Amino acid sequence: MIVRPPEHWLTRTLVWHGSVLSKIFTRLLLNFLLSVAVIIMLPWYTSLGIRLTVAPFSILGVAIAIFLGFRNNACFARYVEARHLWGELVIVSRTALREVKNTLPEGADAVAFARLQIAFVHSLRMQLRGLPQRETLARYLDEAQLEEVLAVQSPANRILQLMAGWLAAHRRRGALSDILFSSLSNRLAEMSAVQAGCERIANTPLPFAYSLILHRTVYLFCIMLPFALVSDLHYMTPFVSVLISYTFISLDALAEELEEPFGFENNDLPLDAISTAIEIDLLQMNDAREVPAKREHDKHYQLT
Amino acid sequence: MIVRPPEHWLTRTLVWHGSVLSKIFTRLLLNFLLSVAVIIMLPWYTSLGIRLTVAPFSILGVAIAIFLGFRNNACFARYVEARHLWGELVIVSRTALREVKNTLPEGADAVAFARLQIAFVHSLRMQLRGLPQRETLARYLDEAQLEEVLAVQSPANRILQLMAGWLAAHRRRGALSDILFSSLSNRLAEMSAVQAGCERIANTPLPFAYSLILHRTVYLFCIMLPFALVSDLHYMTPFVSVLISYTFISLDALAEELEEPFGFENNDLPLDAISTAIEIDLLQMNDAREVPAKREHDKHYQLT
Amino acid sequence: MIVRPPEHWLTRTLVWHGSVLSKIFTRLLLNFLLSVAVIIMLPWYTSLGIRLTVAPFSILGVAIAIFLGFRNNACFARYVEARHLWGELVIVSRTALREVKNTLPEGADAVAFARLQIAFVHSLRMQLRGLPQRETLARYLDEAQLEEVLAVQSPANRILQLMAGWLAAHRRRGALSDILFSSLSNRLAEMSAVQAGCERIANTPLPFAYSLILHRTVYLFCIMLPFALVSDLHYMTPFVSVLISYTFISLDALAEELEEPFGFENNDLPLDAISTAIEIDLLQMNDAREVPAKREHDKHYQLT
Amino acid sequence: MIVRPPEHWLTRTLVWHGSVLSKIFTRLLLNFLLSVAVIIMLPWYTSLGIRLTVAPFSILGVAIAIFLGFRNNACFARYVEARHLWGELVIVSRTALREVKNTLPEGADAVAFARLQIAFVHSLRMQLRGLPQRETLARYLDEAQLEEVLAVQSPANRILQLMAGWLAAHRRRGALSDILFSSLSNRLAEMSAVQAGCERIANTPLPFAYSLILHRTVYLFCIMLPFALVSDLHYMTPFVSVLISYTFISLDALAEELEEPFGFENNDLPLDAISTAIEIDLLQMNDAREVPAKREHDKHYQLT
Amino acid sequence: MIVRPPEHWLTRTLVWHGSVLSKIFTRLLLNFLLSVAVIIMLPWYTSLGIRLTVAPFSILGVAIAIFLGFRNNACFARYVEARHLWGELVIVSRTALREVKNTLPEGADAVAFARLQIAFVHSLRMQLRGLPQRETLARYLDEAQLEEVLAVQSPANRILQLMAGWLAAHRRRGALSDILFSSLSNRLAEMSAVQAGCERIANTPLPFAYSLILHRTVYLFCIMLPFALVSDLHYMTPFVSVLISYTFISLDALAEELEEPFGFENNDLPLDAISTAIEIDLLQMNDAREVPAKREHDKHYQLT
Repeated sequence: MIVRPPEHWLTRTLVWHGSVLSKIFTRLLLNFLLSVAVIIMLPWYTSLGIRLTVAPFSILGVAIAIFLGFRNNACFARYVEARHLWGELVIVSRTALREVKNTLPEGADAVAFARLQIAFVHSLRMQLRGLPQRETLARYLDEAQLEEVLAVQSPANRILQLMAGWLAAHRRRGALSDILFSSLSNRLAEMSAVQAGCERIANTPLPFAYSLILHRTVYLFCIMLPFALVSDLHYMTPFVSVLISYTFISLDALAEELEEPFGFENNDLPLDAISTAIEIDLLQMNDAREVPAKREHDKHYQLT
Repeated sequence: MIVRPPEHWLTRTLVWHGSVLSKIFTRLLLNFLLSVAVIIMLPWYTSLGIRLTVAPFSILGVAIAIFLGFRNNACFARYVEARHLWGELVIVSRTALREVKNTLPEGADAVAFARLQIAFVHSLRMQLRGLPQRETLARYLDEAQLEEVLAVQSPANRILQLMAGWLAAHRRRGALSDILFSSLSNRLAEMSAVQAGCERIANTPLPFAYSLILHRTVYLFCIMLPFALVSDLHYMTPFVSVLISYTFISLDALAEELEEPFGFENNDLPLDAISTAIEIDLLQMNDAREVPAKREHDKHYQLT
Repeated sequence: MIVRPPEHWLTRTLVWHGSVLSKIFTRLLLNFLLSVAVIIMLPWYTSLGIRLTVAPFSILGVAIAIFLGFRNNACFARYVEARHLWGELVIVSRTALREVKNTLPEGADAVAFARLQIAFVHSLRMQLRGLPQRETLARYLDEAQLEEVLAVQSPANRILQLMAGWLAAHRRRGALSDILFSSLSNRLAEMSAVQAGCERIANTPLPFAYSLILHRTVYLFCIMLPFALVSDLHYMTPFVSVLISYTFISLDALAEELEEPFGFENNDLPLDAISTAIEIDLLQMNDAREVPAKREHDKHYQLT
Repeated sequence: MIVRPPEHWLTRTLVWHGSVLSKIFTRLLLNFLLSVAVIIMLPWYTSLGIRLTVAPFSILGVAIAIFLGFRNNACFARYVEARHLWGELVIVSRTALREVKNTLPEGADAVAFARLQIAFVHSLRMQLRGLPQRETLARYLDEAQLEEVLAVQSPANRILQLMAGWLAAHRRRGALSDILFSSLSNRLAEMSAVQAGCERIANTPLPFAYSLILHRTVYLFCIMLPFALVSDLHYMTPFVSVLISYTFISLDALAEELEEPFGFENNDLPLDAISTAIEIDLLQMNDAREVPAKREHDKHYQLT
Repeated sequence: MIVRPPEHWLTRTLVWHGSVLSKIFTRLLLNFLLSVAVIIMLPWYTSLGIRLTVAPFSILGVAIAIFLGFRNNACFARYVEARHLWGELVIVSRTALREVKNTLPEGADAVAFARLQIAFVHSLRMQLRGLPQRETLARYLDEAQLEEVLAVQSPANRILQLMAGWLAAHRRRGALSDILFSSLSNRLAEMSAVQAGCERIANTPLPFAYSLILHRTVYLFCIMLPFALVSDLHYMTPFVSVLISYTFISLDALAEELEEPFGFENNDLPLDAISTAIEIDLLQMNDAREVPAKREHDKHYQLT
């Protein structure tokens, strides 16, 4: 689900939902309490010869920031690519239907083709989110199609095969020349590319070691930070420590959210809204009277 | 609207409009005043044991700079992609009309097709900027077309359907072979790709948490900076504090401007100028006598 | 083999397999012992006038972090590109079979074509991993094909030639028009592109000097670090030194794993799983009853 | 104009033309003189309580370096893209003529088509550099063509239309099948893409605010630097200050040169040389006897 | 020539050839000697009031590291693109021959076409490396072809024209339909794209000013470094100074090697090996008995 920035600047700065703050609040609170404890225990452990200075943490902080920047880049690239693929699906859905309507003889049933397209979009969405597909697909497919589609590993791919069969039937009875068939067949190939692209993102996470190394170093860094700051800052330690921790931990947490763009968390893609928008477009291209309602942001500025 | 760098170096350095300076002036002034207050109150709060040093702010400053650099990259990439898409629209508009003129029989009405193309361009521009479309589109579409176009969720997509219908009519009465029809149909698919690409940029902002995290940390960093600088710099605190704050806040503000490239702010894309340029090109390709005037930069070096 | 992040946060943080920690444990232990030795020997070598401070290591640390970031980017780009190529293979495999089934006359033996496709996928996988191919390919190719394929430098390329010959035979006896043949021929070209792309990644490593320069500087940096830290941190030296070393060495080690994405190490691509998934898809598109079992993560969350 | 690195290492290091050094010499000299003044006035303004330390400049320096790196990336990307577009023009020019020669009946006048191609290349070059086009184009176009071309906003686009008309005439009298016409028409679309791509780079500068913010901060940073360095370095201040200023100012100046790759400055693209090379290629493909001389580097290693 | 990492870790770390170490050894030695001189002269020049501290070098070091990172990126991108282009050549060579063999009537002389392809590959290789072409090309072209090819500015482009002529002759006598001819013609266009891409990389170096600015600042930085380190590190100065210098100078030297990927230096592309591999593939696709031997790494792990 994506979060729309509120218009008013105050709401905007104080917004809680959709920022990662709600998620990392506990960790920042712990960091604050640790800092307070460090101030209190300072005389005791200094007497044991335990001391930390800021300088080595400066090296570490810069190194972690660079590596976090790299990981953020990689996670954000996954998010952007996922969004591109769904944008591609918008393009190819509209284009395929436009071409079907304009190349087939006037009597051809473009509504049937559009229904398969819509089924494909929803099937892909539900596959990526791990939802059961039968109920939704039953709205767009007849009984025989439904069983055929649900019998295989990849239902969406089977729906593509149904579309291809529909086109091939038209070609075989001469309603579609080889050139126009080939052109429409390329549209199906583009839908297939969207599907396999999304599957790639969903099935191959960012190498887990990246997340693990950075999690661990960020946490250890934030835990040791109050010890390093306390001799210089004393009473101000908790505030500075929490501010630095907030910067590092929140970016680490955000990267994790973006890494899996097809989920239901904040900052995930609004697949429901995009699917519905495609459905509306395709129905309106066939001059349908009734179309589903467009999905809008809820009062927390969120859109699933 | 984009800003053209003035020729003269002095105007260039002192230019106010179009730089983000006008926007962040208040914040920098507050930072200056805070610094002065910090100098005055220094003896008082030092006596309370409150002290800050530069070293931890060095870690924080570098981390924020790296993350700001990342966010700037992401926002700038949106701006560049949006500009690429409109450049693509220039290409495909010229190419589609050239191909229509050279593949259809000589008597075909290329002017009618060009009018639909121009309507598409303006419709897309107005959709992206949230402007009402009826008045402008009425200049290019007849009554029936206008009602058909405005009835749907995406008017620009409906105009593409009108173009496709125009081509299909030619194909059906044998004036256009399947190969040439298929080639022109691909041009419409490219226009559709431009439209859906722009919609993607407009509808899916950069994950809001990025902006929020960076806004908050930049502000807190700039607020705490004078406290950290004052013990070293004393009277020079306000100047150095404002200089550092200017660097961070202005880049944060610029990234925000670039994030939504279709708006009316400074550093947004000059959609009016590009749309008019496409219109002139298409009219001149049909040897029109009268064309709209080219949009030029105004006296503040700005172009909408 | 890729590692799936465990669900439970504790398992997740403590996971040993699949993180690079198991690989670099010895080096970190040595670093710890060196730090202890440095603390013990401190009075002795200080008396010799040998001293190190943190400041120059700060310059070095930042420089190494920037260069490591660059190398990580380059290695990760190889990993991502390799994954894209195999995703491309999923797309083109499904698309080619769908087009074969829908363009050839109904009697054509799509099962034979699919068998060649599956042989291609496995041949490419085994070529990239340096495995002997005869046994596996014998399951999909007849005797004559097998000898022909194994006689040349690039078996996978020869299998493509077999597919092309199969299509050409159909074209020559008129079952496939030039247009449809040309379209299917482009699918073979896409498979060829996947193959050559993978060969490029496998045959041209990242310039070896990058790895070498960074290995050497990272190691020398970590060895000298305890000497630089000890005068400031004393008893805390081993902990901070190991933490900094962990950050640098683990990212260096991870980059090395990602550099060769077709191997059997952790964080390498799960080629077995992808190949099997393609095989299942192609068999199910031909309505095969028996398909191989899908590969799943083992109990160490790993997938080959 | 591009600069070729001299072979001899001494010439290479001492080269003056083509480095940005000639451009920023005055600013570095001023920085040197300021540093000297700062040393002389040190006792006076220290007594006023004015002092600066290096630490805050360290934060600022790193931040500016990161942002300069970002801007350099963006400017260099414009330069690289512009070079790619002209490389694309080399490809499509050769390919289009090769295809024209091999698809049209033997008697067709490929020389006439090549002349239009050359006119297109020169027209695009002159448009990008704001040069008057009549005189040069008159060498390649006849009187009627010349007037038609110069009458419109975009002469190069009109030349494309002439090429398309030439091809369409062949198609209409049956010398070119629809398939081959469509293929050649795509080559014109590629030329059109090069043109619109170059126009995009030329018409949409990098957001001016980036240059402005960085100019200002780099200058203020370099002006304040001697004050910060003097207490530590004393007599060495001018040397270190000039070295640091050189690093920052020269990269800022270089980015500015690269930002507009079509100009006549150092480090701009050698459009004259590329245009001439295309002209030679096309003439030689038609077995012309006389071709223009290839452009070579002048004695300052420069090529326009 | 590329360097293959040796298997054994010790050989791997100590390898001399192929690392840039052999190249920069003199400079590091000079740096070491300078450091020793600095230690010896320390009392003398300190008495003159000359002193340097580490802090300003920290700013400079980070800035240089960031800019070196940027330049390394740009040079590496050239290397990667060059490798991609040659990978593209592998793909299109195999694909073009496969399509020729399967679309032309069975009697067509695919061996003659393959010979032209091989000549193209070698001609491009020799052009990029500035080698004389006559002797090698004479092995693949007959007398008349050879003179025609060597008479022009770009022999490889002329060989493409010969291929196109060969295909056009088949088309003109009806052996190749327009569709199949057009498809094969696109393969030639792809070869042309590889050629022009390589020419672009070879003819347009990275803007020379980048190399120059970074060379100069890196050298001045390394020369001044011992002076800055000596007061803190004393006897350890040479070791730390050489380590830091090694990091910066070696990455600068490596970037320079990668910048021109078609040369004969270490870390340049193995064009001989790739060309031979393409030749073997094409000959084996025509079932040739005798093929050249595959190029292997020599005992220094190098491959030209």
